[in-house]
Amino acid sequence: MGGVLARGGVKYLTELEVMLGSRSYQIMIGSGLLPEVGELVGDLVPGRRALVVSDETVFGLYGGTLEDSLKGAGFEVEAALVPPGEEHKTLAWTGQLYERAFEAGLDRFCPVIALGGGVVGDLAGFAAATYMRGVPFVQLPTTLLAQVDSSVGGKVAVNHPRGKNAIGAFYQPVLVASDVDTLASLPARQVRSGLAEVIKYGVIWDEKFFAWLEENVDRLLNKEVETMVHAVSESCRIKAQVVEEDETERGLRAILNFGHTVGHALEAAAGYGTYTHGEAVAAGMAAEARLALKSGLLAPRDYRRLIALLKRAGLPAELPGGVSPERIVSYMWRDKKVKGGRLTFVLPSRIGKAVIKAGVSEGEVLRYCFAGR
Amino acid sequence: MGGVLARGGVKYLTELEVMLGSRSYQIMIGSGLLPEVGELVGDLVPGRRALVVSDETVFGLYGGTLEDSLKGAGFEVEAALVPPGEEHKTLAWTGQLYERAFEAGLDRFCPVIALGGGVVGDLAGFAAATYMRGVPFVQLPTTLLAQVDSSVGGKVAVNHPRGKNAIGAFYQPVLVASDVDTLASLPARQVRSGLAEVIKYGVIWDEKFFAWLEENVDRLLNKEVETMVHAVSESCRIKAQVVEEDETERGLRAILNFGHTVGHALEAAAGYGTYTHGEAVAAGMAAEARLALKSGLLAPRDYRRLIALLKRAGLPAELPGGVSPERIVSYMWRDKKVKGGRLTFVLPSRIGKAVIKAGVSEGEVLRYCFAGR
Repeated sequence: MGGVLARGGVKYLTELEVMLGSRSYQIMIGSGLLPEVGELVGDLVPGRRALVVSDETVFGLYGGTLEDSLKGAGFEVEAALVPPGEEHKTLAWTGQLYERAFEAGLDRFCPVIALGGGVVGDLAGFAAATYMRGVPFVQLPTTLLAQVDSSVGGKVAVNHPRGKNAIGAFYQPVLVASDVDTLASLPARQVRSGLAEVIKYGVIWDEKFFAWLEENVDRLLNKEVETMVHAVSESCRIKAQVVEEDETERGLRAILNFGHTVGHALEAAAGYGTYTHGEAVAAGMAAEARLALKSGLLAPRDYRRLIALLKRAGLPAELPGGVSPERIVSYMWRDKKVKGGRLTFVLPSRIGKAVIKAGVSEGEVLRYCFAGR
Repeated sequence: MGGVLARGGVKYLTELEVMLGSRSYQIMIGSGLLPEVGELVGDLVPGRRALVVSDETVFGLYGGTLEDSLKGAGFEVEAALVPPGEEHKTLAWTGQLYERAFEAGLDRFCPVIALGGGVVGDLAGFAAATYMRGVPFVQLPTTLLAQVDSSVGGKVAVNHPRGKNAIGAFYQPVLVASDVDTLASLPARQVRSGLAEVIKYGVIWDEKFFAWLEENVDRLLNKEVETMVHAVSESCRIKAQVVEEDETERGLRAILNFGHTVGHALEAAAGYGTYTHGEAVAAGMAAEARLALKSGLLAPRDYRRLIALLKRAGLPAELPGGVSPERIVSYMWRDKKVKGGRLTFVLPSRIGKAVIKAGVSEGEVLRYCFAGR
């Protein structure tokens, strides 16, 4: 954790290194980072043409600052704007980005820069991963969810009519720069959505961080800058540790899916857009923690701590009544992580530790996950 | 080099290991391999649904043997057939392969298996690299060119109206199995085309192999099985060594482009299909060797050895008269490997060694590369 640094107007700067051999990269979290991005990227890539991918809303707020910064560092800048919304994370839009990259004259040494939330990052990342077999990719996440989750770890993808994130790649960025100042414009519901993933990291990996969240959740809801930098940094630190050990999700990385087996199914069953991703994950964590509790894996006290923190963060702490359990379970079977016809869950064994449990029966899921309603 | 091995009817088996950390994989070269593929793949991947991608011609010849082998190892097999020809290596066909993969119920643990030449391998490989963020990919190359070049090294791609191989990835297979028996049906012109790349490996890396080619070129043109296995194995060994040192083409790997700066430009300038890739590369090697000769880098004796071997292999040893030098040079500038506005060449300094020379002027290219005509 830093105080005020020499670099321009950057405050509370934290720098993390994700160690993945030749694909290692830096994550920077702080206040006042966006105006410094041109210089940072200029140090990392040899090319001097940049394609900025953003959505219309975010670009209207922060595009000017980013463009000025890039131009100041000698870049020719082209912007490709995508309408906001998950429905634009498609192969067709990837094709549009290829066209813009060709028009901008991007070669293998020129960066694609994502400015926005998860949709923009995933889409731009997939284009960067595949244009000329991969060009340097920079993530500038502007939502809490993207800062703590999708921008770290190298998963990029677009949706396909047959499945969410069904077409994609593992492709690491050369830099992630999270300017918490961009959260100022983020609606409260989106802040809470991001907090669901932040809480998840505490549950699966770090009891001390979880306890810190119990102390600081109100400050985070108020977007207090220094507190926010700490929450984002610790979340990224934990995710980076997990990803370093298992880049392409063969084992350990699966623990990041705590709350997601139920959460993804709920999101889909209710119809995308009904719940935010974080709300669905929060309800999923509550349901999966209940499964852990009823299986005798998780102590009642730890279960109650999780439920209490979710509630204080303004997040759902049980599955909503409007979607039938059977419908939610039917969606679990469609998940691309279903292995050999068995439902697999990530279950907390205490606050700060999670285990992978394969072969959970549909009956157990129906009995335990939904019992709290 | 092996003799007759225990495994079924496999003869002259050579096994190479490409060492790329967690992405390491094996290349097997031999006679009688195709009927063993089911067992080999079954040992490598946990899933038991396979998508075989092939072209109609190749599948008609070898599809039955492969399907039987896979079914014998417990796989459910679906085949996706692409019409032959480079013009089908597109994003649209990639989309078709995604559809077939979904229909076949492929999950992240199930293999995509390419049976065919470079077009099939590149297209299937790109689909495998991006379907569900990457599924196990198996290369069964059935042309000499694919066996010695495109199946090794992890470059997968499709063409885009704006550029050949412009959309793609670096994605390593889990297995490459080259059955030289499939070369029996390969037209003589395609055998010669493959030999161009084989000769290239001798020039850039291994004088001893080049000398062996001088001794054995007639046997290769006659497709003598044991000789062919040796030529494919040595070519793969050399390519694997280069790729191991530089997986994503940041430096050394560029030496594999000997003959290709001129060759790619000739191929495009003459119109794809006029010359085979190998013919264009052979003419390109002759032209670039002449540039090396005239620059004082390459001794006349070594230059003459290369020209003589190209001729004995039935390959062009100079640039054809029908395409203007200026037109060929104009295509060089469009290559995605042009760095910072300078023409870069890989030039042999002797048989067995090549160096990268940047900043060659257009005047030098016009003066030296075309002087032999």
